[in-house]
Amino acid sequence: MAGVVSPSMAVWVVEDADGGGRAYSTLNEGYGKVLRYGAYAPEVLDRLAWMNGAMAAVLAAALAERAETGDGPLDLRNLLAEALHMGDEGHNRNKSGSLLLLRSLAPAIARVGGDEASRVIEFLAGNALSVLNPVMAACKLAADRAHGVEASSVVSAMARNGTDFGIRVSGLGDRWFTAPAAVPDGVYFAGFGAGDANPDIGDSTITETAGIGAFAMAAAPAIVSFVGGSADEALEATLEMYEITVAEHDHFTIPALGFRGTPVGIDLVRVVELGIPPRVNTGIAHREAGVGQIGAGLVRPPLAIFEEALEAFAARYLTEPRDAIATNSEEE
Amino acid sequence: MAGVVSPSMAVWVVEDADGGGRAYSTLNEGYGKVLRYGAYAPEVLDRLAWMNGAMAAVLAAALAERAETGDGPLDLRNLLAEALHMGDEGHNRNKSGSLLLLRSLAPAIARVGGDEASRVIEFLAGNALSVLNPVMAACKLAADRAHGVEASSVVSAMARNGTDFGIRVSGLGDRWFTAPAAVPDGVYFAGFGAGDANPDIGDSTITETAGIGAFAMAAAPAIVSFVGGSADEALEATLEMYEITVAEHDHFTIPALGFRGTPVGIDLVRVVELGIPPRVNTGIAHREAGVGQIGAGLVRPPLAIFEEALEAFAARYLTEPRDAIATNSEEE
Repeated sequence: MAGVVSPSMAVWVVEDADGGGRAYSTLNEGYGKVLRYGAYAPEVLDRLAWMNGAMAAVLAAALAERAETGDGPLDLRNLLAEALHMGDEGHNRNKSGSLLLLRSLAPAIARVGGDEASRVIEFLAGNALSVLNPVMAACKLAADRAHGVEASSVVSAMARNGTDFGIRVSGLGDRWFTAPAAVPDGVYFAGFGAGDANPDIGDSTITETAGIGAFAMAAAPAIVSFVGGSADEALEATLEMYEITVAEHDHFTIPALGFRGTPVGIDLVRVVELGIPPRVNTGIAHREAGVGQIGAGLVRPPLAIFEEALEAFAARYLTEPRDAIATNSEEE
Repeated sequence: MAGVVSPSMAVWVVEDADGGGRAYSTLNEGYGKVLRYGAYAPEVLDRLAWMNGAMAAVLAAALAERAETGDGPLDLRNLLAEALHMGDEGHNRNKSGSLLLLRSLAPAIARVGGDEASRVIEFLAGNALSVLNPVMAACKLAADRAHGVEASSVVSAMARNGTDFGIRVSGLGDRWFTAPAAVPDGVYFAGFGAGDANPDIGDSTITETAGIGAFAMAAAPAIVSFVGGSADEALEATLEMYEITVAEHDHFTIPALGFRGTPVGIDLVRVVELGIPPRVNTGIAHREAGVGQIGAGLVRPPLAIFEEALEAFAARYLTEPRDAIATNSEEE
């Protein structure tokens, strides 16, 4: 993580240490009434103003101090690997990862944060999602590295906008395959129910794309109290995802599975052949603007977008040999 | 946790919220070259002097500020319950619990710690055992509540001194039953091996007595990389301990076992009947004074002390009916 810049909107700046680019994410506001789930009451805007001003300045100073003293940028891959050994799955459960972020930043914040030091530490300490946003940016960098590989049927992005669920495929360029998003099957905060829920929304499915979140649920059995289901089902969620992925992660491992790497690299072909869409852990937004997050749960993208993508994949890659033969017979 | 007092040696003061007394523990020094494992090099003593002076004063001020602002004392039972959902077992793995301690104290430390705030935060943040000592004191309070119950065969204390392993039994007063301690079967820090190990040492087995540590290993599969064994064995360790205990903990639960309470209340009778001594996770001290901790591993107390205690238990409680009958026949 290279720093925080704060001209109009402060963002985390996450760099691929191998020179593979940068990704950015906002600072996480927490649960409940937050802008990213559609809330915009005065207290939401006041909090954002403070985060964007004083908090961002303190974080930037703390990261700069780390750089000066030789601690350098935060290593998000190591942090996430450690968090998966501490009961997180990295998407909907980030309690441990957020405390690891606090551990890494609090000493520098105490040194450079002045009057705001304690408030920034308190905000990070009190937000069990603090680390989610930079983790998402790190996952984006990882997934982008898998994009654009000729003839690769690996899914390189998944995202939802509250109306549609879309995927992109490594070997199929920048085209998105989309279909209507489902409403998550979830556990609701007090006072809310399934009738209040908006269809699945957000770009956080980049975590599942990169092999964490629902794919790493076996590492996070306690998450079922937040998203529903049983501990056995959390284990089965990960085991099922091995069936539709091409690899096991080198760095993200699951202690309960004998430190097996998380399933990573969703293979379009396997998804369609087996009829198993990827699993997603997700927050649930109220369907009316202004309310915010009202729960969390489990969802899957519609199988139809994988079928459509596979048709496009076949059209692009399976026709080439035919063309080649035709060309050969015509020209020779 | 009520506060830190620092006349000659600073200690955590842990109170039973139900008015069941107080227990005390030192401030944890960390891993490796530390006094509690026998190291006493100048850097060990320098660190202790700083901990006992500046650090203890900052912690005391932070706890006092919590009390003034209404946050009150730390709730160690809640903290530990949460840590067990974050991959700790509470004895040899306290990564999450120590970060939860940091989370609870860092904001106040930043406010009241002055020039030492950042160093104290850094020390707590860098020591994955920070919370172990107050946890041990809390376990001592819990175990003491089970002590002194007439006709109870529950083990109310276990401790080792590097030579002997001793237990005390609820219904048998203050008598200790002891036998030579074993050398743990462990994983050693680089440069050390089994030949360097001292027999089992320390009073931290109060954690297993209170239903955590080895008894909660199913909550902490990642611990096997530190103490040895496999994730399946960690699960089996907890399952086996249900066989020799009288209850499942109301507050400490294990997500991977469907949130089942940890096994608690070691029953002398079951231990001897089944031939299953309690399991213990433990650190390993070098057999020579001055070196310190050289590893961590698994050990069990000798079965002989349970057999001896059961004989004493039988002598005390099984003879009374006979006496009563004799008295009846003689006097009526």
